[in-house]
Amino acid sequence: MKLGSLKQGRDGELIVVSRDLARAVRATGIAPTLQAALDSWSVSAPKLAALYARLQAGSSGKRIEGEFAFDAALAEGKVAAPLPRSYEFVDGSAYLPHVERVRRARGAQVPESFYSDPLMYQAVSAGFYGPRDPVVVPDAAYGIDLEAEIVIVTDDVPMAATPAAAAGHIVLVGLVNDVSLRNLIPAELEKGFGFLQSKPRSALSPVLVTPDELGPAWRDNKVHLPLRSWVNGQWFGAPEAGEDMQFDFAQLIAHAAKSRPLGAGTIVGSGTVANQDESRGASCFAEKRVLEIIRDGKPTTPFMAFGDVVRIDLTDAEGRSICGSIEQTMAKL
Amino acid sequence: MKLGSLKQGRDGELIVVSRDLARAVRATGIAPTLQAALDSWSVSAPKLAALYARLQAGSSGKRIEGEFAFDAALAEGKVAAPLPRSYEFVDGSAYLPHVERVRRARGAQVPESFYSDPLMYQAVSAGFYGPRDPVVVPDAAYGIDLEAEIVIVTDDVPMAATPAAAAGHIVLVGLVNDVSLRNLIPAELEKGFGFLQSKPRSALSPVLVTPDELGPAWRDNKVHLPLRSWVNGQWFGAPEAGEDMQFDFAQLIAHAAKSRPLGAGTIVGSGTVANQDESRGASCFAEKRVLEIIRDGKPTTPFMAFGDVVRIDLTDAEGRSICGSIEQTMAKL
Repeated sequence: MKLGSLKQGRDGELIVVSRDLARAVRATGIAPTLQAALDSWSVSAPKLAALYARLQAGSSGKRIEGEFAFDAALAEGKVAAPLPRSYEFVDGSAYLPHVERVRRARGAQVPESFYSDPLMYQAVSAGFYGPRDPVVVPDAAYGIDLEAEIVIVTDDVPMAATPAAAAGHIVLVGLVNDVSLRNLIPAELEKGFGFLQSKPRSALSPVLVTPDELGPAWRDNKVHLPLRSWVNGQWFGAPEAGEDMQFDFAQLIAHAAKSRPLGAGTIVGSGTVANQDESRGASCFAEKRVLEIIRDGKPTTPFMAFGDVVRIDLTDAEGRSICGSIEQTMAKL
Repeated sequence: MKLGSLKQGRDGELIVVSRDLARAVRATGIAPTLQAALDSWSVSAPKLAALYARLQAGSSGKRIEGEFAFDAALAEGKVAAPLPRSYEFVDGSAYLPHVERVRRARGAQVPESFYSDPLMYQAVSAGFYGPRDPVVVPDAAYGIDLEAEIVIVTDDVPMAATPAAAAGHIVLVGLVNDVSLRNLIPAELEKGFGFLQSKPRSALSPVLVTPDELGPAWRDNKVHLPLRSWVNGQWFGAPEAGEDMQFDFAQLIAHAAKSRPLGAGTIVGSGTVANQDESRGASCFAEKRVLEIIRDGKPTTPFMAFGDVVRIDLTDAEGRSICGSIEQTMAKL
């Protein structure tokens, strides 16, 4: 099934969305918000699945009561992030080609441990942009960048869960534009306490989907499809999310849960998707610039300017969008 | 006023607690949870204040309807963290004597920028221990430590708020035991992405209080009282929280809000309280060990063992607890 939220208050209004992302129906009779549904997932998931089945059965033209055009609501900016705010977002950096290139560009080695111990940080979860909301930044000199990533959402994960156990706690899959302020990163990382100002709020895809919606493209706790991005309508990249992902989502969950439980609704990010095959393009400007540094000795592509538009999408073998696209304009505060 | 939560579901049940922490009454008629109250603070705060006034008026012996013994509920383990889960916790390291000593012990300098640019990290907010809950850790070899800190809670803070504006968004004050797993820190910080496994869940004090409850001890956006801690009943430290705090809470909020808004209910931590005056003791074992390293060349005090008990309290000039004490036993998963 596919789940989203209409903008309403701080936590949105839970909706079930049709497979083709054209139609939707409120699910507030089952749970008022997606967080509430996740808080009682074993009870709410079967009910939501039944509603989804009814909505799908209506696809042939027979409308169900209360359904509305999801595509129109999305275009009108009425769709919130599926989780407009969440209690936890832990973001990995699981695609080692990205890490290797970033290090190579600055003449540093990748420590051997990076191939067995995931890089992961505590990210801001208190607010996610809706899929069509502008990215608001006080100053373009901060170095505005996108990061196209896959995310999964968990139910309750016990402390010290193994990767094998963690795999059973993946309940939803989606996309994030993990907005990064590149020019704030070096000084912040040098202080040693990780990202704070340099990783502001991110956007989620219009819907989160249960893994079965991906069919055979969901296996080994990875999404085996290209993650496509465009900037100002120009192709930016389409790396395969199932390739070069050093740590799968079960391993990332287990890493985060080593010393604490993860609550229902925890979002786990893959990190910017990147492949060894450079012809597939990039999922962030930092990657593109690093390739330029490796090739030319210096970067020629600037970070984004106010007015620039980012689009991120995950499509199936037939080109149909799975989670809906993230489309955001960079805007000055 | 003083606000807390009884254990109930994931988010607790909002209660108003008497100034002497002896009595309480459910405030669920005003807002079901503290998060809900904070989400509509301008509406709920006056109502909660009125209920608090009624509860206080009953102190002379006249009970109000529904009141119960808060001290008994606390002793029985029925009291949750005031915010059992929160959307954001950003933790500072505002007491420079601590930072200076940690660096001195490893032969490093404190960068000049540390005196003008706060150290702060994105901390886990998805779950807080109640004030009497055990601290559950899989392995004592992780190096279990307390960190006694002051926290404040904000209402909605706009992006890029100045410190002067940020001061007006401090609505509640309390304590945190910011549990740290010291032996996991060096490897994690070396990876460059900050704390994740090394900073598990923390505990909050039994109640959070409005700043007026501190009287003249709340000024300059700081708490001017000693923060007391004990380990296994032994005095551990009582540094003055109003001294040596390089950045006040308004500055810490402004630092965190540089590139994003902070939502209602954001928790901002001071960092482990430490003074230049070493005779006042420490607020964490790391500090105690660092002083031993500086004095003797090596630490002699180990981190905590399972069964060890931590107590943290903030008392007024007459010795009365303001937020209630945090009392936690270290426990194996």
